[in-house]
Amino acid sequence: MGLIVQKFGGSSVADAESIRRVAWIIAEAYSEGKNVVVVLSAQADTTDDLIAKAKELNPNPSMREMDVLLSTGEQASIALMAMALETLGLPVVSLTGWQVGMNTDSSYGSARIKGVSAERLKAELDRRRIVLVAGFQGINKFDDITTIGRGGSDTTAVALAVTLNAEICRIYTDVEGIFTGDPNKLPGAKKLDEITYDEMIELATLGAQVLHNRSVEMAKRYGVKMEVLSSLVRKPGTIVKGVTKMEHMKISGVAKDSDIARIALVGLKDEPGVAFKMFRVLANEKINIDIILQSIGRNNTNDISFTVSRSDMEKAVNVLEENKDIIGYTDISTTDKIAKVSIVGAGMMSSPGVAAMMFEALYDSKINIAMISTSEIKISVLVDENDADRSVAAIHAKFFGA
Amino acid sequence: MGLIVQKFGGSSVADAESIRRVAWIIAEAYSEGKNVVVVLSAQADTTDDLIAKAKELNPNPSMREMDVLLSTGEQASIALMAMALETLGLPVVSLTGWQVGMNTDSSYGSARIKGVSAERLKAELDRRRIVLVAGFQGINKFDDITTIGRGGSDTTAVALAVTLNAEICRIYTDVEGIFTGDPNKLPGAKKLDEITYDEMIELATLGAQVLHNRSVEMAKRYGVKMEVLSSLVRKPGTIVKGVTKMEHMKISGVAKDSDIARIALVGLKDEPGVAFKMFRVLANEKINIDIILQSIGRNNTNDISFTVSRSDMEKAVNVLEENKDIIGYTDISTTDKIAKVSIVGAGMMSSPGVAAMMFEALYDSKINIAMISTSEIKISVLVDENDADRSVAAIHAKFFGA
Repeated sequence: MGLIVQKFGGSSVADAESIRRVAWIIAEAYSEGKNVVVVLSAQADTTDDLIAKAKELNPNPSMREMDVLLSTGEQASIALMAMALETLGLPVVSLTGWQVGMNTDSSYGSARIKGVSAERLKAELDRRRIVLVAGFQGINKFDDITTIGRGGSDTTAVALAVTLNAEICRIYTDVEGIFTGDPNKLPGAKKLDEITYDEMIELATLGAQVLHNRSVEMAKRYGVKMEVLSSLVRKPGTIVKGVTKMEHMKISGVAKDSDIARIALVGLKDEPGVAFKMFRVLANEKINIDIILQSIGRNNTNDISFTVSRSDMEKAVNVLEENKDIIGYTDISTTDKIAKVSIVGAGMMSSPGVAAMMFEALYDSKINIAMISTSEIKISVLVDENDADRSVAAIHAKFFGA
Repeated sequence: MGLIVQKFGGSSVADAESIRRVAWIIAEAYSEGKNVVVVLSAQADTTDDLIAKAKELNPNPSMREMDVLLSTGEQASIALMAMALETLGLPVVSLTGWQVGMNTDSSYGSARIKGVSAERLKAELDRRRIVLVAGFQGINKFDDITTIGRGGSDTTAVALAVTLNAEICRIYTDVEGIFTGDPNKLPGAKKLDEITYDEMIELATLGAQVLHNRSVEMAKRYGVKMEVLSSLVRKPGTIVKGVTKMEHMKISGVAKDSDIARIALVGLKDEPGVAFKMFRVLANEKINIDIILQSIGRNNTNDISFTVSRSDMEKAVNVLEENKDIIGYTDISTTDKIAKVSIVGAGMMSSPGVAAMMFEALYDSKINIAMISTSEIKISVLVDENDADRSVAAIHAKFFGA
């Protein structure tokens, strides 16, 4: 008997009306003869409300107790959904993270899933029950409750799909799938029928926050087919899988990331170890670096520019200034009036001219490029913040039409 | 090292201010060198809010899923209190019902505690941690979450006190202890220093809803000393134990119960099995009977009067009328314009004249008695609803002064 995993996020279970709508989606899958495992997030706002209550008492609560607190949100969701399914006369049982055997390490607040001891889960499925699983939570070797980080319910769903060898892991959202651009801003944005794991990961990194990246990485590793689709509109979404059809478009999407700042160190000595020292001090402060570009400066020196998230800019500058003598540079300059615009596509590098098309689109719109970075399946450019939306529109029009 | 169990109810943890106040009470006990186990209820209103959410989806949800839902309330409380204690620099850990090994039977919604497998709890205490335990919840043999009924956190506290051989189980409330009458209505009401388990049980049954009866029964069975005291005012409360001091007052309190209705069946045949048939049909409908009085009627018939809670009156009348032929009676009469007023005291029956004093107080106030019922430690009378408060005041004045 086929088995599918469905995951619904916080807005899909926000109130009684939403819960009833989701119950019908679950009922439909079950009545088609499938075994159905459903992963639920906390009701919208619940997690934020709980965090606010915690912070009122303690600005720095232990992560262990935070996990005890936050895990109640998903537990309430599964119970409420079970009650809704009961009214449809369907056999259903809800299981928390510890009941489903979602074993994690002990990194409270951002635990990694180690495995699923799914005896209970399988026994319930054998009885033809719909099993509702609390997302985002697990249990560690001390029998303590852990959470696997925000957005982690996607990962819960994929982990269950792996364990149960599911046909597909369907992630229900408030959009109809993955689009070539933001459909609210680009009238010509097209929904993709398919996308590869790698393209999805690049798009997620770039701020198209439909799927949690960890979940896609896990799906890729174990070959779990995913589908991103709407819980509001009944139509096929976007399939995420390993290899897509031959007629796949050269690029699968255009994305913008505005949470970005650029720092440039000027006048670095042209000798081994300079870059190492520089990025070592940043890593010690847990500052994530995105794009790095090194260029030749004057008088046998190098310049290195890199980008960080805006919230990290000040910390990065401080630590670089504290270590100015160790690293050895003459000047430091920063800006956060920039944005990153990227195109993603698995077939890109084997299609000459994609980069040229992108740059041409920007040139036609008289948009200046501050930095360029490329990977196997992605080309990113840094542009002035004020040009970002125009850049996305111009590139999207070039590849997909207006 | 001495160990104490403290229990705080929903109003004691209703908001950040209350939680901080309770944290100081816990900290004080801990700093006196005691091992401290704390049982917490859900924050005030939380349980009612969750029930409302459930009923919106399903008027008759399964009790299993209701328990999954409701148990989140206490889980949130223990996490929040742990965070408050962390700010005081105290070592603390929160444990849910399943983590503490609160084993129950499978009567979801009203489970009975079978035992506590306290390995984890003892290990945490050995590390000199304050242990916060979610009240009201347990786990059954299927590893399902159960709840032990409303007010059950008192029972959780006593069960832990039994298991850990605690010096005392302190139940913190919003009153300063057990009073001889309602202190809000009777200016002369006195706080009792001590009260026996049996007296406490009678008072609880009578509507002085300070302690949950199941908890007192368990405390009696295992000889656990309890104390009812205020979480707002720092002074000794009322000790509940097996035998109280010799100078103990003859009666320990006066209580009123207005949630009462009287049903009378007239003209029952004077033959064996009549009472049995009558109370069997009521029991089948799960209607609880309180006082029963049988009197001789006319022409070799009997009349039987009994009281039920007001919410059960209509159901009781319906089932009695449906079974009129089987039971065999001529008339049925009902009233809910009555109230029950009772005095409770362990030494009562060995003190002749207590009943007389009570009746004298009512006679002096010209209050008519509709029914009388007595037990080892209790005398109850049924009076007109409008006379109830005057009755309590008159009786209280007679025994304790104005």
